[in-house]
Amino acid sequence: MSDNILNNVTYEEIKVGQSVTLVKQLTANDILLFGYMSGDVNPAHFNHDYAKGTMFKDVIAHGMWSGSLISTLLGTQLPGPGTIYLSQSLKFSRPVYVGDVVTAEIKVTEKKEKNRVVFECTCYKQNNEVVTSGVAEVIAPTAKVSVSAPQLSLKAIA
Amino acid sequence: MSDNILNNVTYEEIKVGQSVTLVKQLTANDILLFGYMSGDVNPAHFNHDYAKGTMFKDVIAHGMWSGSLISTLLGTQLPGPGTIYLSQSLKFSRPVYVGDVVTAEIKVTEKKEKNRVVFECTCYKQNNEVVTSGVAEVIAPTAKVSVSAPQLSLKAIA
Repeated sequence: MSDNILNNVTYEEIKVGQSVTLVKQLTANDILLFGYMSGDVNPAHFNHDYAKGTMFKDVIAHGMWSGSLISTLLGTQLPGPGTIYLSQSLKFSRPVYVGDVVTAEIKVTEKKEKNRVVFECTCYKQNNEVVTSGVAEVIAPTAKVSVSAPQLSLKAIA
Repeated sequence: MSDNILNNVTYEEIKVGQSVTLVKQLTANDILLFGYMSGDVNPAHFNHDYAKGTMFKDVIAHGMWSGSLISTLLGTQLPGPGTIYLSQSLKFSRPVYVGDVVTAEIKVTEKKEKNRVVFECTCYKQNNEVVTSGVAEVIAPTAKVSVSAPQLSLKAIA
């Protein structure tokens, strides 16, 4: 992670139709990190021999991994720092395999009273197939924030 | 993580009203892992000085961290291996602080056709305050599975 400054987008600045994306290629380490963090050690995510016998034929990401990318967009890009996450719905439509390139996109669909903003959320693969979709609602910040992104390292954990 | 065997619960075995729980005390490392894995480096989760100036007054877990505990229950306990995760709704009601002890609980509310099962999902703190709630729908397995849980280590990553 680079030495980035995070700048938020306030409720006033947010426009219906505005969207942001992030692109991430799923690695085996991403699956390992999600499993280690959550304790979700379901063999569908780790055991290649077991996975061969499932309908997906290989190990796949946890569904909530793609959900976490949506959280990342809301927390770091739009609205970014100062956002209060109220709710999220997620529909898991297709599996994500190691090597798949996933684009997560959030788009403003509604600005409501009390600084609430509704987003349509979609994660899709390199072939444009949607893997995860849903709706998020947040309280957007009213004050501008510009703050350094923390530099995270796992060295102290492993 | 111990050398556990994961046993699933099939659609036929699942009963409406059946529930399982897991208890986890939030550590700063849990927040670090979620941030590292997802890229959600919002300072509300990492920067104590910044967090002092927010309505929550201290760093808090990512909302999706509690959502990941629900995924863990579905993937490892009920129904466990063989489960296909279809959808999840999450309402984030209150912040979770480092040191808080969170109980995640999922309870079967409905068995539907095509092996679909609906769960009420709740995460609450040591004082019984609900922090996260929602509804999950899965396709439950029809075949019994008994499989070793993988032993996960971060040594290769950090």
